[in-house]
Amino acid sequence: MDFTPRDPNWENRVRSSYAAQAFMTNLGAELVHLSPGAVDLELKMRTDLTQQHGYFHAGVTSSIADSAAGYAALSLFAPGFGVLTSEYKINLLNPAAQKVLMARGRVVKPGRTLTIAKADVYGLDEGVHVHVATGLFTLVSVPGVKD
Amino acid sequence: MDFTPRDPNWENRVRSSYAAQAFMTNLGAELVHLSPGAVDLELKMRTDLTQQHGYFHAGVTSSIADSAAGYAALSLFAPGFGVLTSEYKINLLNPAAQKVLMARGRVVKPGRTLTIAKADVYGLDEGVHVHVATGLFTLVSVPGVKD
Amino acid sequence: MDFTPRDPNWENRVRSSYAAQAFMTNLGAELVHLSPGAVDLELKMRTDLTQQHGYFHAGVTSSIADSAAGYAALSLFAPGFGVLTSEYKINLLNPAAQKVLMARGRVVKPGRTLTIAKADVYGLDEGVHVHVATGLFTLVSVPGVKD
Amino acid sequence: MDFTPRDPNWENRVRSSYAAQAFMTNLGAELVHLSPGAVDLELKMRTDLTQQHGYFHAGVTSSIADSAAGYAALSLFAPGFGVLTSEYKINLLNPAAQKVLMARGRVVKPGRTLTIAKADVYGLDEGVHVHVATGLFTLVSVPGVKD
Repeated sequence: MDFTPRDPNWENRVRSSYAAQAFMTNLGAELVHLSPGAVDLELKMRTDLTQQHGYFHAGVTSSIADSAAGYAALSLFAPGFGVLTSEYKINLLNPAAQKVLMARGRVVKPGRTLTIAKADVYGLDEGVHVHVATGLFTLVSVPGVKD
Repeated sequence: MDFTPRDPNWENRVRSSYAAQAFMTNLGAELVHLSPGAVDLELKMRTDLTQQHGYFHAGVTSSIADSAAGYAALSLFAPGFGVLTSEYKINLLNPAAQKVLMARGRVVKPGRTLTIAKADVYGLDEGVHVHVATGLFTLVSVPGVKD
Repeated sequence: MDFTPRDPNWENRVRSSYAAQAFMTNLGAELVHLSPGAVDLELKMRTDLTQQHGYFHAGVTSSIADSAAGYAALSLFAPGFGVLTSEYKINLLNPAAQKVLMARGRVVKPGRTLTIAKADVYGLDEGVHVHVATGLFTLVSVPGVKD
Repeated sequence: MDFTPRDPNWENRVRSSYAAQAFMTNLGAELVHLSPGAVDLELKMRTDLTQQHGYFHAGVTSSIADSAAGYAALSLFAPGFGVLTSEYKINLLNPAAQKVLMARGRVVKPGRTLTIAKADVYGLDEGVHVHVATGLFTLVSVPGVKD
Protein backbone atom coordinates (compact mmCIF):
# COMPACT_ATOMS: atom_id res chain seq x y z
CA MET A 1 0.00 0.00 0.00
CA ASP A 2 1.04 3.59 -0.59
CA PHE A 3 1.09 5.94 2.36
CA THR A 4 1.80 9.66 2.59
CA PRO A 5 3.53 10.83 5.78
CA ARG A 6 1.84 13.69 7.68
CA ASP A 7 5.14 14.89 9.11
CA PRO A 8 7.68 16.28 6.57
CA ASN A 9 10.37 15.34 9.11
CA TRP A 10 9.14 11.72 9.42
CA GLU A 11 12.41 10.07 8.44
CA ASN A 12 14.64 11.86 10.97
CA ARG A 13 12.00 11.44 13.60
CA VAL A 14 11.76 7.66 13.18
CA ARG A 15 15.53 7.24 13.04
CA SER A 16 16.27 9.33 16.11
CA SER A 17 13.46 7.76 18.14
CA TYR A 18 14.68 4.30 17.13
CA ALA A 19 18.23 5.22 18.16
CA ALA A 20 16.83 6.06 21.62
CA GLN A 21 15.36 2.55 22.14
CA ALA A 22 18.09 1.28 24.43
CA PHE A 23 16.56 -2.20 24.37
CA MET A 24 17.07 -2.46 20.60
CA THR A 25 20.75 -1.59 21.17
CA ASN A 26 20.86 -4.36 23.80
CA LEU A 27 19.52 -6.83 21.20
CA GLY A 28 21.88 -5.54 18.49
CA ALA A 29 18.91 -4.77 16.25
CA GLU A 30 19.49 -2.36 13.36
CA LEU A 31 17.03 -0.44 11.24
CA VAL A 32 17.79 -1.69 7.73
CA HIS A 33 14.79 -0.33 5.81
CA LEU A 34 12.52 2.65 6.28
CA SER A 35 9.79 3.94 4.00
CA PRO A 36 6.35 5.41 4.79
CA GLY A 37 4.44 2.74 6.74
CA ALA A 38 7.27 0.19 6.46
CA VAL A 39 10.22 -0.66 8.70
CA ASP A 40 12.62 -3.63 8.60
CA LEU A 41 14.88 -4.51 11.52
CA GLU A 42 17.66 -7.08 11.69
CA LEU A 43 19.74 -8.60 14.43
CA LYS A 44 22.42 -11.26 14.56
CA MET A 45 22.30 -14.53 16.51
CA ARG A 46 23.94 -14.24 19.93
CA THR A 47 23.91 -16.74 22.76
CA ASP A 48 22.33 -14.25 25.17
CA LEU A 49 19.26 -13.97 22.91
CA THR A 50 18.35 -17.65 23.13
CA GLN A 51 15.98 -19.82 25.09
CA GLN A 52 16.81 -23.21 26.63
CA HIS A 53 17.08 -25.15 23.32
CA GLY A 54 19.37 -22.64 21.63
CA TYR A 55 16.66 -21.01 19.49
CA PHE A 56 15.97 -17.29 19.53
CA HIS A 57 13.75 -16.62 22.55
CA ALA A 58 10.15 -15.89 21.53
CA GLY A 59 10.60 -12.63 23.42
CA VAL A 60 13.40 -11.56 21.08
CA THR A 61 11.35 -12.42 18.01
CA SER A 62 8.40 -10.49 19.44
CA SER A 63 10.52 -7.53 20.52
CA ILE A 64 11.83 -6.76 17.05
CA ALA A 65 8.42 -7.49 15.53
CA ASP A 66 6.92 -4.97 17.97
CA SER A 67 9.52 -2.29 17.25
CA ALA A 68 9.22 -2.82 13.49
CA ALA A 69 5.44 -2.48 13.67
CA GLY A 70 5.65 0.50 16.03
CA TYR A 71 8.07 2.49 13.86
CA ALA A 72 6.15 1.62 10.70
CA ALA A 73 3.19 3.26 12.47
CA LEU A 74 5.18 6.25 13.76
CA SER A 75 6.39 7.02 10.22
CA LEU A 76 2.80 8.05 9.43
CA PHE A 77 1.99 10.02 12.60
CA ALA A 78 1.39 13.77 12.64
CA PRO A 79 4.09 15.86 14.37
CA GLY A 80 3.75 16.01 18.16
CA PHE A 81 2.36 12.50 18.61
CA GLY A 82 4.34 9.64 20.15
CA VAL A 83 3.78 5.91 19.65
CA LEU A 84 2.85 3.26 22.22
CA THR A 85 1.89 -0.36 21.63
CA SER A 86 -1.62 -1.05 22.88
CA GLU A 87 -1.67 -4.78 22.18
CA TYR A 88 -0.44 -7.43 19.84
CA LYS A 89 -0.76 -11.08 18.93
CA ILE A 90 1.97 -13.20 17.44
CA ASN A 91 2.08 -16.74 16.05
CA LEU A 92 5.48 -18.42 16.24
CA LEU A 93 5.55 -20.53 13.09
CA ASN A 94 9.00 -22.12 13.27
CA PRO A 95 11.77 -22.21 15.87
CA ALA A 96 14.67 -20.09 14.63
CA ALA A 97 18.43 -20.42 15.04
CA GLN A 98 19.59 -18.76 11.83
CA LYS A 99 22.43 -16.23 11.72
CA VAL A 100 20.10 -13.31 11.13
CA LEU A 101 16.60 -12.55 12.37
CA MET A 102 14.70 -9.97 10.34
CA ALA A 103 11.37 -8.33 11.24
CA ARG A 104 9.22 -6.61 8.63
CA GLY A 105 6.68 -4.16 10.04
CA ARG A 106 3.96 -2.90 7.69
CA VAL A 107 1.00 -0.62 8.39
CA VAL A 108 -2.33 -2.24 7.54
CA LYS A 109 -4.59 0.67 8.44
CA PRO A 110 -3.36 4.07 9.61
CA GLY A 111 -5.59 6.14 11.86
CA ARG A 112 -5.62 9.32 13.92
CA THR A 113 -5.71 7.45 17.23
CA LEU A 114 -5.25 3.76 16.40
CA THR A 115 -2.97 2.31 13.73
CA ILE A 116 -3.10 -1.39 12.86
CA ALA A 117 0.11 -2.96 11.62
CA LYS A 118 1.39 -6.43 10.88
CA ALA A 119 4.87 -7.82 11.27
CA ASP A 120 6.50 -10.92 9.86
CA VAL A 121 9.78 -12.30 11.15
CA TYR A 122 12.21 -14.35 9.06
CA GLY A 123 15.32 -16.38 9.87
CA LEU A 124 18.04 -15.84 7.29
CA ASP A 125 21.09 -17.92 6.46
CA GLU A 126 22.93 -18.58 3.21
CA GLY A 127 20.17 -19.87 0.96
CA VAL A 128 17.74 -20.11 3.87
CA HIS A 129 14.66 -17.97 4.40
CA VAL A 130 12.40 -19.35 7.15
CA HIS A 131 9.09 -17.75 8.15
CA VAL A 132 9.55 -17.53 11.92
CA ALA A 133 6.54 -15.54 13.08
CA THR A 134 3.56 -13.44 12.00
CA GLY A 135 1.75 -10.92 14.15
CA LEU A 136 -0.86 -8.17 14.33
CA PHE A 137 -0.31 -4.97 16.34
CA THR A 138 -2.41 -2.04 17.55
CA LEU A 139 -0.41 1.15 18.01
CA VAL A 140 -1.72 4.28 19.72
CA SER A 141 -0.72 7.82 18.80
CA VAL A 142 -0.33 9.73 22.04
CA PRO A 143 -0.48 13.55 21.93
CA GLY A 144 2.26 15.45 23.76
CA VAL A 145 4.70 12.55 23.83
CA LYS A 146 8.02 13.28 22.17
CA ASP A 147 9.03 10.85 19.43
CA MET B 1 -6.73 -23.96 40.42
CA ASP B 2 -5.06 -27.08 41.77
CA PHE B 3 -2.79 -29.03 39.45
CA THR B 4 -0.89 -32.29 39.92
CA PRO B 5 2.46 -32.54 38.11
CA ARG B 6 2.95 -35.62 35.90
CA ASP B 7 6.72 -35.54 36.39
CA PRO B 8 7.98 -36.25 39.95
CA ASN B 9 11.08 -34.27 39.01
CA TRP B 10 9.06 -31.25 37.83
CA GLU B 11 10.69 -28.72 40.13
CA ASN B 12 14.31 -29.45 39.20
CA ARG B 13 13.34 -29.67 35.58
CA VAL B 14 11.73 -26.23 35.50
CA ARG B 15 14.58 -24.62 37.46
CA SER B 16 17.36 -26.09 35.34
CA SER B 17 15.59 -25.33 32.06
CA TYR B 18 14.95 -21.77 33.23
CA ALA B 19 18.62 -21.39 34.15
CA ALA B 20 19.46 -22.34 30.55
CA GLN B 21 17.40 -19.47 29.07
CA ALA B 22 20.32 -17.18 28.32
CA PHE B 23 17.94 -14.40 27.31
CA MET B 24 16.41 -14.34 30.82
CA THR B 25 19.93 -13.90 32.20
CA ASN B 26 20.44 -11.02 29.74
CA LEU B 27 17.27 -9.36 31.12
CA GLY B 28 18.26 -10.05 34.72
CA ALA B 29 15.00 -11.95 35.28
CA GLU B 30 14.82 -14.27 38.27
CA LEU B 31 12.41 -17.07 39.07
CA VAL B 32 10.89 -15.95 42.39
CA HIS B 33 7.95 -18.37 42.68
CA LEU B 34 7.31 -21.88 41.41
CA SER B 35 4.40 -24.18 42.15
CA PRO B 36 2.49 -26.61 39.88
CA GLY B 37 1.05 -24.55 37.04
CA ALA B 38 2.38 -21.26 38.45
CA VAL B 39 5.59 -19.28 37.88
CA ASP B 40 6.52 -15.73 38.90
CA LEU B 41 9.49 -13.91 37.40
CA GLU B 42 11.00 -10.58 38.42
CA LEU B 43 13.52 -8.23 36.92
CA LYS B 44 14.90 -4.83 37.90
CA MET B 45 14.71 -1.63 35.87
CA ARG B 46 17.82 -1.07 33.75
CA THR B 47 18.38 1.54 31.04
CA ASP B 48 19.09 -1.11 28.42
CA LEU B 49 15.59 -2.56 28.87
CA THR B 50 13.78 0.64 27.90
CA GLN B 51 12.12 2.08 24.82
CA GLN B 52 12.45 5.67 23.63
CA HIS B 53 10.41 7.29 26.45
CA GLY B 54 12.25 5.52 29.27
CA TYR B 55 9.52 2.92 29.92
CA PHE B 56 10.20 -0.80 29.89
CA HIS B 57 10.11 -1.88 26.24
CA ALA B 58 6.93 -3.84 25.40
CA GLY B 59 9.29 -6.60 24.28
CA VAL B 60 10.74 -6.90 27.78
CA THR B 61 7.29 -7.02 29.34
CA SER B 62 6.24 -9.67 26.82
CA SER B 63 9.44 -11.68 27.19
CA ILE B 64 9.04 -12.28 30.92
CA ALA B 65 5.30 -12.84 30.48
CA ASP B 66 6.10 -15.48 27.86
CA SER B 67 8.72 -17.24 30.00
CA ALA B 68 6.45 -17.16 33.06
CA ALA B 69 3.59 -18.69 31.06
CA GLY B 70 5.89 -21.22 29.40
CA TYR B 71 7.42 -22.49 32.64
CA ALA B 72 4.02 -22.58 34.35
CA ALA B 73 3.04 -24.93 31.52
CA LEU B 74 6.24 -26.99 31.64
CA SER B 75 5.73 -27.65 35.37
CA LEU B 76 2.77 -29.85 34.37
CA PHE B 77 4.32 -31.68 31.38
CA ALA B 78 5.08 -35.40 31.39
CA PRO B 79 8.78 -36.35 31.41
CA GLY B 80 10.42 -36.26 27.98
CA PHE B 81 8.39 -33.35 26.59
CA GLY B 82 9.82 -29.89 25.99
CA VAL B 83 7.92 -26.61 25.81
CA LEU B 84 7.58 -24.17 22.90
CA THR B 85 5.34 -21.11 22.62
CA SER B 86 2.90 -21.52 19.75
CA GLU B 87 1.30 -18.08 19.99
CA TYR B 88 0.29 -15.38 22.39
CA LYS B 89 -1.59 -12.14 22.69
CA ILE B 90 -0.82 -9.38 25.13
CA ASN B 91 -2.57 -6.14 26.10
CA LEU B 92 -0.28 -3.44 27.44
CA LEU B 93 -2.46 -1.71 30.03
CA ASN B 94 -0.10 0.91 31.43
CA PRO B 95 3.40 2.14 30.54
CA ALA B 96 5.81 0.97 33.24
CA ALA B 97 8.95 2.53 34.70
CA GLN B 98 8.84 1.07 38.20
CA LYS B 99 11.90 -0.40 39.93
CA VAL B 100 10.68 -3.97 39.56
CA LEU B 101 8.71 -5.70 36.81
CA MET B 102 7.00 -8.94 37.86
CA ALA B 103 5.30 -11.48 35.58
CA ARG B 104 2.83 -14.03 36.93
CA GLY B 105 2.26 -17.03 34.68
CA ARG B 106 -0.69 -19.31 35.48
CA VAL B 107 -1.99 -22.35 33.60
CA VAL B 108 -5.63 -21.98 32.56
CA LYS B 109 -6.05 -25.37 30.92
CA PRO B 110 -3.39 -28.06 30.81
CA GLY B 111 -3.41 -30.55 27.95
CA ARG B 112 -1.40 -33.37 26.45
CA THR B 113 -0.43 -31.34 23.37
CA LEU B 114 -1.67 -27.79 23.99
CA THR B 115 -1.61 -25.92 27.30
CA ILE B 116 -3.34 -22.56 27.64
CA ALA B 117 -1.86 -20.15 30.17
CA LYS B 118 -2.32 -16.52 31.12
CA ALA B 119 0.23 -14.06 32.38
CA ASP B 120 -0.16 -10.74 34.15
CA VAL B 121 2.67 -8.25 34.52
CA TYR B 122 2.94 -5.73 37.35
CA GLY B 123 5.19 -2.75 37.99
CA LEU B 124 6.30 -2.60 41.63
CA ASP B 125 7.67 0.29 43.66
CA GLU B 126 7.34 1.24 47.32
CA GLY B 127 3.57 1.35 47.79
CA VAL B 128 2.97 1.05 44.05
CA HIS B 129 1.44 -1.92 42.26
CA VAL B 130 0.53 -1.14 38.65
CA HIS B 131 -1.13 -3.62 36.29
CA VAL B 132 1.18 -3.34 33.29
CA ALA B 133 -0.05 -6.10 30.98
CA THR B 134 -2.30 -9.12 30.62
CA GLY B 135 -1.88 -11.90 28.09
CA LEU B 136 -3.01 -15.32 26.88
CA PHE B 137 -0.53 -17.96 25.70
CA THR B 138 -0.68 -21.30 23.87
CA LEU B 139 2.20 -23.62 24.75
CA VAL B 140 2.99 -26.83 22.89
CA SER B 141 4.49 -29.92 24.50
CA VAL B 142 7.01 -31.32 22.05
CA PRO B 143 8.07 -34.97 22.40
CA GLY B 144 11.80 -35.71 22.34
CA VAL B 145 12.86 -32.17 23.23
CA LYS B 146 14.94 -31.94 26.38
CA ASP B 147 13.61 -29.58 29.02
CA MET C 1 -12.88 -4.65 40.85
CA ASP C 2 -15.15 -1.78 41.79
CA PHE C 3 -16.14 0.67 39.10
CA THR C 4 -18.19 3.84 39.21
CA PRO C 5 -20.29 4.60 36.12
CA ARG C 6 -19.83 8.06 34.58
CA ASP C 7 -23.37 8.08 33.20
CA PRO C 8 -26.20 8.17 35.79
CA ASN C 9 -28.39 6.55 33.13
CA TRP C 10 -25.90 3.68 32.48
CA GLU C 11 -28.31 0.86 33.21
CA ASN C 12 -31.09 1.95 30.83
CA ARG C 13 -28.51 2.80 28.23
CA VAL C 14 -26.88 -0.65 28.26
CA ARG C 15 -30.22 -2.45 28.30
CA SER C 16 -31.75 -0.48 25.44
CA SER C 17 -28.60 -0.67 23.31
CA TYR C 18 -28.43 -4.42 23.95
CA ALA C 19 -32.07 -4.79 22.94
CA ALA C 20 -31.14 -3.14 19.62
CA GLN C 21 -28.49 -5.78 18.78
CA ALA C 22 -30.58 -7.73 16.31
CA PHE C 23 -27.89 -10.39 16.05
CA MET C 24 -28.19 -11.19 19.76
CA THR C 25 -31.92 -11.70 19.21
CA ASN C 26 -31.07 -14.03 16.32
CA LEU C 27 -28.85 -16.06 18.68
CA GLY C 28 -31.47 -16.05 21.45
CA ALA C 29 -28.95 -14.44 23.82
CA GLU C 30 -30.33 -12.75 26.92
CA LEU C 31 -28.72 -10.27 29.28
CA VAL C 32 -28.91 -12.07 32.64
CA HIS C 33 -26.58 -9.89 34.73
CA LEU C 34 -25.58 -6.24 34.61
CA SER C 35 -23.50 -4.27 37.07
CA PRO C 36 -20.86 -1.54 36.52
CA GLY C 37 -18.13 -3.11 34.34
CA ALA C 38 -19.81 -6.52 34.29
CA VAL C 39 -22.28 -8.20 31.91
CA ASP C 40 -23.39 -11.83 31.67
CA LEU C 41 -25.22 -13.18 28.62
CA GLU C 42 -26.86 -16.56 28.15
CA LEU C 43 -28.26 -18.47 25.22
CA LYS C 44 -29.78 -21.92 24.77
CA MET C 45 -28.47 -24.68 22.50
CA ARG C 46 -30.16 -24.68 19.10
CA THR C 47 -29.25 -26.69 16.02
CA ASP C 48 -28.77 -23.57 13.93
CA LEU C 49 -25.98 -22.39 16.24
CA THR C 50 -23.77 -25.42 15.66
CA GLN C 51 -20.78 -26.34 13.53
CA GLN C 52 -20.33 -29.61 11.67
CA HIS C 53 -19.80 -31.84 14.75
CA GLY C 54 -22.83 -30.55 16.65
CA TYR C 55 -20.86 -28.26 18.99
CA PHE C 56 -21.62 -24.57 19.34
CA HIS C 57 -19.86 -22.81 16.46
CA ALA C 58 -16.78 -20.89 17.61
CA GLY C 59 -18.45 -17.87 16.06
CA VAL C 60 -21.40 -18.16 18.43
CA THR C 61 -19.11 -18.50 21.43
CA SER C 62 -17.12 -15.47 20.27
CA SER C 63 -20.21 -13.43 19.46
CA ILE C 64 -21.65 -13.57 22.97
CA ALA C 65 -18.18 -13.12 24.47
CA ASP C 66 -17.78 -9.99 22.34
CA SER C 67 -21.19 -8.56 23.27
CA ALA C 68 -20.63 -9.32 26.96
CA ALA C 69 -17.24 -7.57 26.89
CA GLY C 70 -18.60 -4.66 24.85
CA TYR C 71 -21.54 -3.97 27.15
CA ALA C 72 -19.38 -4.37 30.25
CA ALA C 73 -17.27 -1.57 28.72
CA LEU C 74 -20.27 0.57 27.71
CA SER C 75 -21.62 0.48 31.27
CA LEU C 76 -18.65 2.70 32.24
CA PHE C 77 -18.69 5.13 29.29
CA ALA C 78 -19.55 8.81 29.64
CA PRO C 79 -22.87 9.91 28.08
CA GLY C 80 -22.67 10.55 24.33
CA PHE C 81 -20.08 7.87 23.56
CA GLY C 82 -20.89 4.66 21.70
CA VAL C 83 -18.95 1.38 21.82
CA LEU C 84 -17.16 -0.45 19.02
CA THR C 85 -14.91 -3.50 19.26
CA SER C 86 -11.41 -2.68 18.02
CA GLU C 87 -9.95 -6.17 18.34
CA TYR C 88 -10.07 -9.33 20.36
CA LYS C 89 -8.40 -12.66 20.90
CA ILE C 90 -10.11 -15.79 22.11
CA ASN C 91 -8.88 -19.24 23.14
CA LEU C 92 -11.39 -22.03 22.71
CA LEU C 93 -10.63 -24.32 25.63
CA ASN C 94 -13.24 -27.05 25.21
CA PRO C 95 -15.82 -27.90 22.56
CA ALA C 96 -19.28 -27.15 23.96
CA ALA C 97 -22.64 -28.81 23.44
CA GLN C 98 -24.29 -28.05 26.79
CA LYS C 99 -27.87 -26.80 27.10
CA VAL C 100 -26.79 -23.29 28.03
CA LEU C 101 -23.85 -21.15 26.93
CA MET C 102 -22.99 -18.27 29.26
CA ALA C 103 -20.54 -15.43 28.58
CA ARG C 104 -19.13 -13.31 31.40
CA GLY C 105 -17.72 -9.96 30.30
CA ARG C 106 -15.62 -8.02 32.82
CA VAL C 107 -13.73 -4.75 32.41
CA VAL C 108 -10.01 -5.09 33.17
CA LYS C 109 -9.02 -1.47 32.60
CA PRO C 110 -11.45 1.31 31.77
CA GLY C 111 -10.20 4.30 29.78
CA ARG C 112 -11.41 7.45 28.08
CA THR C 113 -10.69 6.10 24.59
CA LEU C 114 -9.72 2.44 25.03
CA THR C 115 -11.24 -0.02 27.49
CA ILE C 116 -9.73 -3.46 27.97
CA ALA C 117 -12.10 -6.25 28.99
CA LYS C 118 -11.97 -10.00 29.34
CA ALA C 119 -14.70 -12.53 28.74
CA ASP C 120 -15.03 -16.14 29.80
CA VAL C 121 -17.58 -18.51 28.32
CA TYR C 122 -19.02 -21.51 30.13
CA GLY C 123 -21.17 -24.44 29.05
CA LEU C 124 -23.86 -25.24 31.62
CA ASP C 125 -25.88 -28.39 32.19
CA GLU C 126 -27.29 -30.01 35.32
CA GLY C 127 -24.21 -30.37 37.48
CA VAL C 128 -21.90 -29.41 34.60
CA HIS C 129 -19.86 -26.24 34.35
CA VAL C 130 -17.30 -26.38 31.53
CA HIS C 131 -14.85 -23.57 30.76
CA VAL C 132 -15.44 -23.17 27.03
CA ALA C 133 -13.40 -20.08 26.14
CA THR C 134 -11.41 -17.16 27.48
CA GLY C 135 -10.70 -13.94 25.63
CA LEU C 136 -9.30 -10.41 25.77
CA PHE C 137 -11.05 -7.47 24.09
CA THR C 138 -10.21 -3.85 23.23
CA LEU C 139 -13.28 -1.62 23.06
CA VAL C 140 -13.26 1.94 21.70
CA SER C 141 -15.49 4.73 22.96
CA VAL C 142 -16.61 6.68 19.92
CA PRO C 143 -17.90 10.25 20.42
CA GLY C 144 -21.18 11.16 18.76
CA VAL C 145 -22.36 7.57 18.33
CA LYS C 146 -25.68 6.84 19.99
CA ASP C 147 -25.65 3.95 22.46
CA MET D 1 1.52 -20.18 -1.70
CA ASP D 2 1.10 -23.55 -3.37
CA PHE D 3 -0.23 -26.40 -1.28
CA THR D 4 -0.80 -30.06 -2.13
CA PRO D 5 -3.77 -31.73 -0.42
CA ARG D 6 -3.04 -34.97 1.46
CA ASP D 7 -6.58 -36.25 0.91
CA PRO D 8 -7.53 -37.01 -2.74
CA ASN D 9 -11.14 -36.44 -1.66
CA TRP D 10 -10.38 -33.01 -0.11
CA GLU D 11 -12.87 -31.06 -2.18
CA ASN D 12 -15.94 -33.19 -1.41
CA ARG D 13 -14.88 -33.39 2.19
CA VAL D 14 -14.67 -29.61 2.65
CA ARG D 15 -17.94 -29.00 0.81
CA SER D 16 -19.94 -31.60 2.71
CA SER D 17 -18.51 -30.58 6.08
CA TYR D 18 -19.27 -26.94 5.29
CA ALA D 19 -22.84 -27.87 4.33
CA ALA D 20 -23.19 -29.41 7.81
CA GLN D 21 -22.33 -26.14 9.61
CA ALA D 22 -25.87 -25.20 10.54
CA PHE D 23 -24.68 -21.84 11.86
CA MET D 24 -23.34 -20.86 8.42
CA THR D 25 -26.81 -21.64 7.01
CA ASN D 26 -28.29 -19.42 9.73
CA LEU D 27 -26.01 -16.57 8.60
CA GLY D 28 -26.74 -17.21 4.91
CA ALA D 29 -23.01 -17.69 4.25
CA GLU D 30 -22.05 -19.46 1.03
CA LEU D 31 -18.77 -21.06 0.01
CA VAL D 32 -17.85 -19.13 -3.15
CA HIS D 33 -14.23 -20.24 -3.62
CA LEU D 34 -12.31 -23.37 -2.70
CA SER D 35 -8.76 -24.33 -3.62
CA PRO D 36 -6.03 -26.09 -1.58
CA GLY D 37 -5.42 -23.93 1.50
CA ALA D 38 -7.89 -21.26 0.40
CA VAL D 39 -11.60 -20.68 1.10
CA ASP D 40 -13.81 -17.65 0.44
CA LEU D 41 -17.22 -17.24 2.04
CA GLU D 42 -19.87 -14.62 1.35
CA LEU D 43 -23.07 -13.55 3.03
CA LYS D 44 -25.63 -10.83 2.36
CA MET D 45 -26.60 -8.01 4.72
CA ARG D 46 -29.65 -8.87 6.84
CA THR D 47 -31.09 -6.95 9.76
CA ASP D 48 -30.72 -9.92 12.08
CA LEU D 49 -26.94 -9.92 11.55
CA THR D 50 -26.44 -6.38 12.89
CA GLN D 51 -25.39 -4.73 16.11
CA GLN D 52 -27.00 -1.67 17.67
CA HIS D 53 -25.77 0.87 15.07
CA GLY D 54 -26.87 -1.16 12.04
CA TYR D 55 -23.39 -2.47 11.18
CA PHE D 56 -22.60 -6.16 10.84
CA HIS D 57 -22.04 -7.51 14.37
CA ALA D 58 -18.35 -8.20 15.06
CA GLY D 59 -19.50 -11.74 15.85
CA VAL D 60 -20.79 -12.21 12.30
CA THR D 61 -17.56 -10.87 10.80
CA SER D 62 -15.56 -13.18 13.05
CA SER D 63 -17.79 -16.18 12.42
CA ILE D 64 -17.27 -16.21 8.67
CA ALA D 65 -13.58 -15.38 9.11
CA ASP D 66 -13.29 -18.38 11.44
CA SER D 67 -15.12 -20.76 9.08
CA ALA D 68 -13.09 -19.53 6.09
CA ALA D 69 -9.82 -20.08 7.97
CA GLY D 70 -10.98 -23.44 9.33
CA TYR D 71 -11.99 -24.85 5.96
CA ALA D 72 -8.85 -23.50 4.30
CA ALA D 73 -6.99 -25.59 6.91
CA LEU D 74 -9.22 -28.67 6.51
CA SER D 75 -8.57 -28.70 2.76
CA LEU D 76 -4.98 -29.73 3.58
CA PHE D 77 -5.69 -32.29 6.33
CA ALA D 78 -4.99 -36.01 5.95
CA PRO D 79 -8.09 -38.27 5.75
CA GLY D 80 -9.57 -39.13 9.13
CA PHE D 81 -8.75 -35.84 10.85
CA GLY D 82 -11.35 -33.24 11.77
CA VAL D 83 -10.80 -29.52 12.31
CA LEU D 84 -11.34 -27.46 15.46
CA THR D 85 -10.40 -23.83 16.10
CA SER D 86 -7.93 -23.57 18.97
CA GLU D 87 -7.72 -19.79 19.11
CA TYR D 88 -7.85 -16.68 17.02
CA LYS D 89 -7.29 -12.94 17.08
CA ILE D 90 -9.10 -10.44 14.91
CA ASN D 91 -8.71 -6.70 14.32
CA LEU D 92 -11.86 -4.94 13.20
CA LEU D 93 -10.55 -2.27 10.85
CA ASN D 94 -13.74 -0.59 9.68
CA PRO D 95 -17.42 -0.85 10.62
CA ALA D 96 -19.27 -2.56 7.77
CA ALA D 97 -22.78 -2.13 6.42
CA GLN D 98 -22.22 -3.08 2.78
CA LYS D 99 -24.54 -5.41 0.85
CA VAL D 100 -22.06 -8.28 0.89
CA LEU D 101 -19.54 -9.42 3.48
CA MET D 102 -16.77 -11.66 2.15
CA ALA D 103 -14.20 -13.61 4.18
CA ARG D 104 -10.97 -14.90 2.63
CA GLY D 105 -9.29 -17.68 4.58
CA ARG D 106 -5.73 -18.61 3.61
CA VAL D 107 -3.35 -21.12 5.19
CA VAL D 108 -0.09 -19.52 6.33
CA LYS D 109 1.61 -22.66 7.63
CA PRO D 110 0.13 -26.16 7.41
CA GLY D 111 1.13 -28.73 10.02
CA ARG D 112 0.33 -32.23 11.19
CA THR D 113 -1.24 -31.02 14.44
CA LEU D 114 -1.43 -27.22 14.19
CA THR D 115 -2.24 -25.20 11.11
CA ILE D 116 -1.90 -21.41 11.12
CA ALA D 117 -4.21 -19.47 8.84
CA LYS D 118 -5.16 -15.87 8.25
CA ALA D 119 -8.47 -14.41 7.20
CA ASP D 120 -9.39 -11.04 5.80
CA VAL D 121 -12.94 -9.76 5.61
CA TYR D 122 -14.19 -7.25 3.06
CA GLY D 123 -17.41 -5.27 2.67
CA LEU D 124 -18.55 -5.17 -0.94
CA ASP D 125 -20.93 -2.82 -2.70
CA GLU D 126 -21.05 -1.45 -6.25
CA GLY D 127 -17.59 0.11 -6.63
CA VAL D 128 -16.86 -0.33 -2.92
CA HIS D 129 -14.32 -2.69 -1.41
CA VAL D 130 -13.69 -1.98 2.28
CA HIS D 131 -11.17 -3.90 4.40
CA VAL D 132 -13.36 -4.79 7.37
CA ALA D 133 -11.16 -7.12 9.42
CA THR D 134 -7.95 -9.11 9.50
CA GLY D 135 -7.23 -12.07 11.74
CA LEU D 136 -4.90 -14.94 12.61
CA PHE D 137 -6.18 -18.41 13.46
CA THR D 138 -4.75 -21.62 14.95
CA LEU D 139 -6.59 -24.74 13.79
CA VAL D 140 -6.09 -28.19 15.29
CA SER D 141 -6.35 -31.43 13.35
CA VAL D 142 -8.13 -33.91 15.60
CA PRO D 143 -7.77 -37.64 14.85
CA GLY D 144 -10.94 -39.72 14.75
CA VAL D 145 -13.27 -36.77 14.22
CA LYS D 146 -15.37 -37.01 11.08
CA ASP D 147 -15.09 -34.05 8.71
